Amino acid sequence: MGILSDGYKKPEDIRKFTLEELYQLSDEIRSFLVESVSRTGGHLAPNLGVVELTVSLFNVFDLEKDKIIYDVGHQSYVHKILTGRKDEFGTLRQFKGLSGFPKRDESRYDAFDTGHSSTSISAALGIARARDLKGEDFDVVAVIGDGALTGGMALEAMNDVGDKKTDLIIVLNDNQMSISRNVGGISTYLSQLRADPTYEKAKKEVQDLFDRMPLGKSINRSVDRVKEGIKSMVLPDMLFENMGLTYLGPVDGHNIKEVSKILKIAKEMKGPKLVHVITKKGKGYKNSEQRPDKFHGTPPFNKSDGRPKKKGMITYSNVFGNTLTEMAKNNKNIVAVVAAMPDGTGLSGFKEIYGKRLFDVGIAEQHAMTLAAGLAAGGLKPYVALYSTFLQRAYDQLIHDVCIQKLDVTVCIDRAGIVGDDGETHQGLLDLSFLTPVPNLTIMAPKSLEELRYMMYYSEHFKGPLAIRYPRGTDEADYHFEPLKEFIPGRFEVMKEGGDGYLYATGKMVSRAVKLSEMLKEKGLSFGVVNGCFIKPVDHELIRTHLDKGLKIITLEDNMLHGGFGSMILESAMGHFMAGNILRFGFEDRFVEQGTPELLYEAYGMGYEEIMKKIIRFTGEKL
Amino acid sequence: MGILSDGYKKPEDIRKFTLEELYQLSDEIRSFLVESVSRTGGHLAPNLGVVELTVSLFNVFDLEKDKIIYDVGHQSYVHKILTGRKDEFGTLRQFKGLSGFPKRDESRYDAFDTGHSSTSISAALGIARARDLKGEDFDVVAVIGDGALTGGMALEAMNDVGDKKTDLIIVLNDNQMSISRNVGGISTYLSQLRADPTYEKAKKEVQDLFDRMPLGKSINRSVDRVKEGIKSMVLPDMLFENMGLTYLGPVDGHNIKEVSKILKIAKEMKGPKLVHVITKKGKGYKNSEQRPDKFHGTPPFNKSDGRPKKKGMITYSNVFGNTLTEMAKNNKNIVAVVAAMPDGTGLSGFKEIYGKRLFDVGIAEQHAMTLAAGLAAGGLKPYVALYSTFLQRAYDQLIHDVCIQKLDVTVCIDRAGIVGDDGETHQGLLDLSFLTPVPNLTIMAPKSLEELRYMMYYSEHFKGPLAIRYPRGTDEADYHFEPLKEFIPGRFEVMKEGGDGYLYATGKMVSRAVKLSEMLKEKGLSFGVVNGCFIKPVDHELIRTHLDKGLKIITLEDNMLHGGFGSMILESAMGHFMAGNILRFGFEDRFVEQGTPELLYEAYGMGYEEIMKKIIRFTGEKL
Repeated sequence: MGILSDGYKKPEDIRKFTLEELYQLSDEIRSFLVESVSRTGGHLAPNLGVVELTVSLFNVFDLEKDKIIYDVGHQSYVHKILTGRKDEFGTLRQFKGLSGFPKRDESRYDAFDTGHSSTSISAALGIARARDLKGEDFDVVAVIGDGALTGGMALEAMNDVGDKKTDLIIVLNDNQMSISRNVGGISTYLSQLRADPTYEKAKKEVQDLFDRMPLGKSINRSVDRVKEGIKSMVLPDMLFENMGLTYLGPVDGHNIKEVSKILKIAKEMKGPKLVHVITKKGKGYKNSEQRPDKFHGTPPFNKSDGRPKKKGMITYSNVFGNTLTEMAKNNKNIVAVVAAMPDGTGLSGFKEIYGKRLFDVGIAEQHAMTLAAGLAAGGLKPYVALYSTFLQRAYDQLIHDVCIQKLDVTVCIDRAGIVGDDGETHQGLLDLSFLTPVPNLTIMAPKSLEELRYMMYYSEHFKGPLAIRYPRGTDEADYHFEPLKEFIPGRFEVMKEGGDGYLYATGKMVSRAVKLSEMLKEKGLSFGVVNGCFIKPVDHELIRTHLDKGLKIITLEDNMLHGGFGSMILESAMGHFMAGNILRFGFEDRFVEQGTPELLYEAYGMGYEEIMKKIIRFTGEKL
Repeated sequence: MGILSDGYKKPEDIRKFTLEELYQLSDEIRSFLVESVSRTGGHLAPNLGVVELTVSLFNVFDLEKDKIIYDVGHQSYVHKILTGRKDEFGTLRQFKGLSGFPKRDESRYDAFDTGHSSTSISAALGIARARDLKGEDFDVVAVIGDGALTGGMALEAMNDVGDKKTDLIIVLNDNQMSISRNVGGISTYLSQLRADPTYEKAKKEVQDLFDRMPLGKSINRSVDRVKEGIKSMVLPDMLFENMGLTYLGPVDGHNIKEVSKILKIAKEMKGPKLVHVITKKGKGYKNSEQRPDKFHGTPPFNKSDGRPKKKGMITYSNVFGNTLTEMAKNNKNIVAVVAAMPDGTGLSGFKEIYGKRLFDVGIAEQHAMTLAAGLAAGGLKPYVALYSTFLQRAYDQLIHDVCIQKLDVTVCIDRAGIVGDDGETHQGLLDLSFLTPVPNLTIMAPKSLEELRYMMYYSEHFKGPLAIRYPRGTDEADYHFEPLKEFIPGRFEVMKEGGDGYLYATGKMVSRAVKLSEMLKEKGLSFGVVNGCFIKPVDHELIRTHLDKGLKIITLEDNMLHGGFGSMILESAMGHFMAGNILRFGFEDRFVEQGTPELLYEAYGMGYEEIMKKIIRFTGEKL
């Protein structure tokens, strides 16, 4: 029995409880979280850190009309538990189960879907402005961590918030971490606000001093003016106030009374407010308090000792990180750039040994990519490690700053393909589609952990922009393949010959293709297997040879069908051999320089005469 | 004769000139700029604003080793003139001519290619860190406007700069404008720094006061501590200092002596510095001083009155803006979001009438997109107007915040296809490739100005994410077509029948297809014309019908071939009819939810059994 299982039914109940009961409820939520997540896995530490904060939000705001937007959203478990989803918690992050992130489809209490970092202020501002234009009346609250605050779009939003004076509450959940320890000037600034007692003290002493000061007539007016100056400089002259927000705090985020009080003040004030709440990530469970980074996202674990239930395996991230560390020993030009995920991307070892050559820029993928471009322009050999889904954030920078200039930047794309538990927002299913049309970029994918190692070696002497794409986790255990050790752009590996056709697979799909070829053999079909180690350029010659012989080509990829590996094969077949009845005109795979449209059409094979000639030839062949 | 044409040969010459000569040189550069750009067109106002600043940079830094990175880069004309490219200035922005932006390929004095906004600090930081790791010795300077400073990636970079204490000089070229007047909290803050004399005065008065203060023993220590407090609060407690940068300025950017002095101070100091320079955009030419926005980028104009040499025509941007303004009258839910380009996107009229319903967020495409998602979640009907090339900045937000949630956001993509003079960095040749793989997104393109109007009407009642893509400028004059007035997703318009085949064209290419069909007719070939008004979904039925009849399909698009309109046609033909010898497996056009990889492969047609069955059928058909 307890309040959570018995007394609590719906959000408005919170306001009926005494302070003591709210603390008891918080304790029960915390126990429930540890118990439940130890079984399912999930984002534990972020949620343990916001138990009292969430209870306080429910205490002050009316969830029936007010909107709370959780940035990133992996800290929304407490919100979910308190909005009728406690009994489904055993299905967390499972197929057809409860999402690990807020989902408007899942509950009317979820105001906006999140997943990627730093979106909450933009979304909240949009909802608040819609409210104002429609003449509605409710509060909008964005709950954002100090880590997410370093993301450029959060800062873009802060700039806009401060300008327009929209009524909005930003709760800064400051736990000094992103997934790992937070970095950057803003973080340093927050620590000053948070930790430095001299700030508060000095503020008080200035006041005291003025109170005690001899107010001789001669300097009276001057003092008044100085006081005004001091007030406008000392008090509001801080980062957030500079940007036009009213700053409230800092306050202990585990003190429900204090947090509720400051939230109520914020609720009453007009304009944009920032409430600075200090929390401890992982609070209340010994193991996660000690290692909040380990318990940021965790697989199922034993409650008693906090150890994962399954033993860890060597992952693609490990192989990437270890190989880069090994290469860095003999090549001083190798540097790594990472966006708040030195651990997740496998670079903690590199960081330990070559700390000065690893640049963790915080949750700032755009900056990460262009920083790498700058490092390359400065003569170094940078490796940018990003998850596929977050590379979407650095797309323009990859095109504009890396590929147009043909700089020696290697992008190591982790978590490509299906990532699993995190769902829609985190799948890495688009990267091949959005990368293949970018000129000057070479794209590779290893068929195995071991092959990734050799691709990394290959990358060291590769000139120009290179992307290497690999999946989450490790190899499927059934197979061991000899890795390719030498690579030639546009040359695939024929792993197994076939009489009926070939399975062309890329990356993780290669081992599946081998299994499929065995299954097909049992059905009497002879299919070979081709390792599409380059997604760009593809092996035009091999494709042509196979099609010339009348063999079938089956492509297999863990990416969207449109624009991916199979489309590269299909387009190659089109262009070089399989004329069929379709002929396409558009821009070939090069960046197009300045000039009038007509001149450029002419220069790039899109002029009237050239198109006409090709059409006549194409039609003539078939006439 | 003059210094520019006679005395000046190379960057180091600057330091030999007297101050008076430097001013004379500046005047000559200014005259040259106005004269030359009046003939070629180009970015006039930004360059007139930085004449003395650039001369000062050359005066203080050694261009033979130091690196200057110009953010955006359209203000690099003075730099180009001073680094041996004066005589080529007549070819500015023309095919095979001088680029309007810095290009490493063009000159060894260009340290990093720019074009898009807000990249310079990241790039400069990369170059500076490479320098430090390699033990080299030179200065790195990023010149960034106050407009570009609102871009998220500049703020991400500032956060990183402040953290690591890398030696770096950021010159903030503050002219209170992006292309139009600058917006946001940072801008407001800068105006305070800039304009408010009380700030400087108060600072001085605090100092004076303490100097005059009676230092009785009892409060002596207290005063010292307060002084310390004041110093650490009043002086460095500003936006930039908060972020860990040393702030120097503000200084009049047209005063060569003052700017040189402050740059020298910055050069001597360690760590990251921000030098705040106030300039006047368009300075020294009456017409551009009065309308710096008009002369930001200008076509050729008459020097005397500043009028464009050619009369302006109704553009796609105008039609978009006018139609939206018209629609907004009867639909109060219509709002517009724009990233620093209310004029360029055609929304100045909308802004004038419905100012409160237009959100200009500054150069902040990421925030713009998610703000629109929030506005839609709040029940409004937002239109986001962006240039194709800048949409690359909001790619993740479009996927993650708009399309996953299927929100009613219409993205109006201006400057799609060839944009012309701005070259590689600004062509809109990738959008179809990166947009077509995104689930839940519908993509349209009008064949004419008039059709855009009807697409806008159609969008008003469209549910879900919609992109409408249109080119820079206006229609080719030769043709007038009846616009489509009704649209059905996936239904193309057959404009003209053909006996040999059809030209499937999209957007601006439709009128070219009509001309081509006439040219082909003269050669005895009968090609019809299809208006591909939807790029996604395509007209599967029409494609199938044409191929069934053995007709040729020729596709025409102003986009990269890979992954664009033609690929959509090709893939449709593959999937539904033209089996050929290639079969592709990958993820269909839906977002993929959470679950283990194996479960998801099964659920999405990628399971072993299902693939095997399809291969057997595919092979059997041909056996």
